[in-house]
Amino acid sequence: MSTSPLRDFVVAVTREVERDAAEAQRLAAVRAHLARLVARDDWLPDELAQPHPQHYRQYLLHADPLERFSVVSFVWGPGQRTPVHDHTVWGLIGMLRGEEVAQNFAYDAAGCLVPTGPAQRLRPGDVEAVSPTLGDIHQVSNAFDDRSSISIHVYGANIGAVHRWVYAPDGTRKPFVSGYSNTWVPNLWDRSKETT
Amino acid sequence: MSTSPLRDFVVAVTREVERDAAEAQRLAAVRAHLARLVARDDWLPDELAQPHPQHYRQYLLHADPLERFSVVSFVWGPGQRTPVHDHTVWGLIGMLRGEEVAQNFAYDAAGCLVPTGPAQRLRPGDVEAVSPTLGDIHQVSNAFDDRSSISIHVYGANIGAVHRWVYAPDGTRKPFVSGYSNTWVPNLWDRSKETT
Ligand SMILES: [Fe+3]
Ligand SMILES: [Fe+3]
Ligand SMILES: [Mg+2]
Repeated sequence: MSTSPLRDFVVAVTREVERDAAEAQRLAAVRAHLARLVARDDWLPDELAQPHPQHYRQYLLHADPLERFSVVSFVWGPGQRTPVHDHTVWGLIGMLRGEEVAQNFAYDAAGCLVPTGPAQRLRPGDVEAVSPTLGDIHQVSNAFDDRSSISIHVYGANIGAVHRWVYAPDGTRKPFVSGYSNTWVPNLWDRSKETT
Repeated sequence: MSTSPLRDFVVAVTREVERDAAEAQRLAAVRAHLARLVARDDWLPDELAQPHPQHYRQYLLHADPLERFSVVSFVWGPGQRTPVHDHTVWGLIGMLRGEEVAQNFAYDAAGCLVPTGPAQRLRPGDVEAVSPTLGDIHQVSNAFDDRSSISIHVYGANIGAVHRWVYAPDGTRKPFVSGYSNTWVPNLWDRSKETT
């Protein structure tokens, strides 16, 4: 197994954030790169694909040092789900393995947080977007009760440092910073064995 | 132990390589950041400080995704040394732990590679430079036969991908790409526990 598809993705997104671009253009560009990354499932190190028995895990794959973007593997064990939460920055979700179900939420005229639109089911290769512009509050579940699912997320910040919110059914919200489940990230940069 | 001094260094050097600068200005800026990093020895993870019984090790600490710079911990076991070698890009060597001895080489008028100037001894906190402009060929040794020494190197490229040279005593040279001793690098980016 080679992590070079992940390296190629990191390089492409770094080049993208080096350019000035409006959010819609940026999302379109990163979406195309992410679609290419999740079109194959032969590059994620096993160490970053392990579920936790009690709760989902978020493993950092790469953080831009200027915190313009970050890439994580989001790993659900059987039947696990997130609380209703927001992001405060743009995000793209590329389904790698298994399937997940996402339900968007928004405030109604009475100030209540309610589901909007049908739940969406993501299958391997699918890519979806969130952002404060597009709709930023959702709840995501593993579609399966009997196996893990994994999606690759890209956020427009270091998501391990972003102050954001979890929403309770009664409409109240609590602050959180998600952090990361791993203390080591893959070394993508040994190119000594490449043929020239 | 916190790796945050390494993160601060990576951020500072990334900001530096984002600016246009002549080599002398770049080296002066990075030298100041590296001097600050090696002024303390409380941040290098133990996993990246382990010597190998037979040969020195080069652990990647961070690679810029656009390969404008890389940072490594260079770990000598007792009595170990490098062959005579070059870099082809600028490099800065900051002594972290123990001591090392560096001898520069250059070609003389007859085309022979000969030592130039006295050997230099680096002590914790010292920073030295190499580059094709300043003198790029040297041999470096652990100053000690009875313990490890560690220096932190910054190069103006992904040194795990640079095609460079090792020089034999008879003046012939062989190509090499150094690669890295580690397949995982530290996750510097979990800021969820920081107080705001
Ligand atoms: Fe989300
Ligand atoms: Fe060297
Ligand atoms: Mg589809």
